[in-house]
Amino acid sequence: MRPFVIINSAMSADGKISTTLRKQVRISGPNDLKRVDTLRAHSDAVMVGIGTVIADDPKLTIKSDALKAMRTRQGKPSDPLRIVVDSSARTPLSASVLGAHTLIAVSQKAPQHAVKALSEKAEVFVAGEHVVDLVALLSHLKQRGVDSLMVEGGARLNFALLDLGLVDEIYTYVGNIVIGGHTAPTLVDGVGFTADFITLDLKELCRMDDGLLIKWRVKGRT
Amino acid sequence: MRPFVIINSAMSADGKISTTLRKQVRISGPNDLKRVDTLRAHSDAVMVGIGTVIADDPKLTIKSDALKAMRTRQGKPSDPLRIVVDSSARTPLSASVLGAHTLIAVSQKAPQHAVKALSEKAEVFVAGEHVVDLVALLSHLKQRGVDSLMVEGGARLNFALLDLGLVDEIYTYVGNIVIGGHTAPTLVDGVGFTADFITLDLKELCRMDDGLLIKWRVKGRT
Repeated sequence: MRPFVIINSAMSADGKISTTLRKQVRISGPNDLKRVDTLRAHSDAVMVGIGTVIADDPKLTIKSDALKAMRTRQGKPSDPLRIVVDSSARTPLSASVLGAHTLIAVSQKAPQHAVKALSEKAEVFVAGEHVVDLVALLSHLKQRGVDSLMVEGGARLNFALLDLGLVDEIYTYVGNIVIGGHTAPTLVDGVGFTADFITLDLKELCRMDDGLLIKWRVKGRT
Repeated sequence: MRPFVIINSAMSADGKISTTLRKQVRISGPNDLKRVDTLRAHSDAVMVGIGTVIADDPKLTIKSDALKAMRTRQGKPSDPLRIVVDSSARTPLSASVLGAHTLIAVSQKAPQHAVKALSEKAEVFVAGEHVVDLVALLSHLKQRGVDSLMVEGGARLNFALLDLGLVDEIYTYVGNIVIGGHTAPTLVDGVGFTADFITLDLKELCRMDDGLLIKWRVKGRT
């Protein structure tokens, strides 16, 4: 048992989510930002990998007061649970994502002192020997009432989740820029697939801002 | 003066044009293959980089007899001029792309014996000291009557052409698979842009086969 999992990401026309310097680039426009905020507001939890925390220091909260109010009216916390997949407990203690209603998932190999320091700033969940056991993490989330999980990157977490068959849908905003670079992070990195590729069903396609939004449903493996 | 240049490529939903092993993957479907064949038939020349020749050994000829006949009726050669950008003259002498009506563009640093051997199998054009001077090459092509050039990859050639401002349009077929891999070739690799990104106008968007086709017009730099 696990939540319904949606990967949501903006990428350039050539599939990059940031530059070779891991510098975030404005890829999408105002309508897409609103869409992302709305998707967050309809999710029980939002998840990122540690690489994204270190590179972008995201807050992962809802921007719109109206959407926050909507959640409160529904009896939910004003923001979804924020989750960082952080095998070695490298989340900086100054990270914007830390705070109440934040879960840092670490592995057993994470240094004790780092885990202790983090546990004063957020909830810490331990699963997996060397890397976070994502199956166990998602099972834990489901048990505590997380039915819908929005994954906001990065490239390695996206790969790990897809590789384990833990993703239901992928929403990609494709922006009207080319970033290039053979070391620039893409939508899905990791070691990649060399056979048995993930296959998708095209669920929705539309123009948005100066780019386009693609909604894929994960079908299986080739 | 240069030809009108269109980059045409299929990529996975995550922007990859092949796997980390550089193994070609079937990304598009029958309608897209027909579209590519038609685009070739309407081009005066078709260009690839040496990486693509070594990895895929493409023939770059038109598949459809009807399209070949159309060209002949128009007084054109049955296939467009085939061009390989090959700075060091590494095109294998057994490459399928070699033959009449093929141009291998090399730089001055290409070994003389390799250039000599290639010149018995195809026309050789020398431009540039260490790498092929693409501006000189495109100018040469225009002078000999090439008004439309279709670039079929790979990732490094796409970057070099975009970086020099030599591309008018980018047609991307996005297939319904995820390939992944942080070293897998993407639509545009090379050193990449870290500022002054290439900006695009979305010209056309449609579903095709199990994926989608995006036609971008190159606008400029940010």
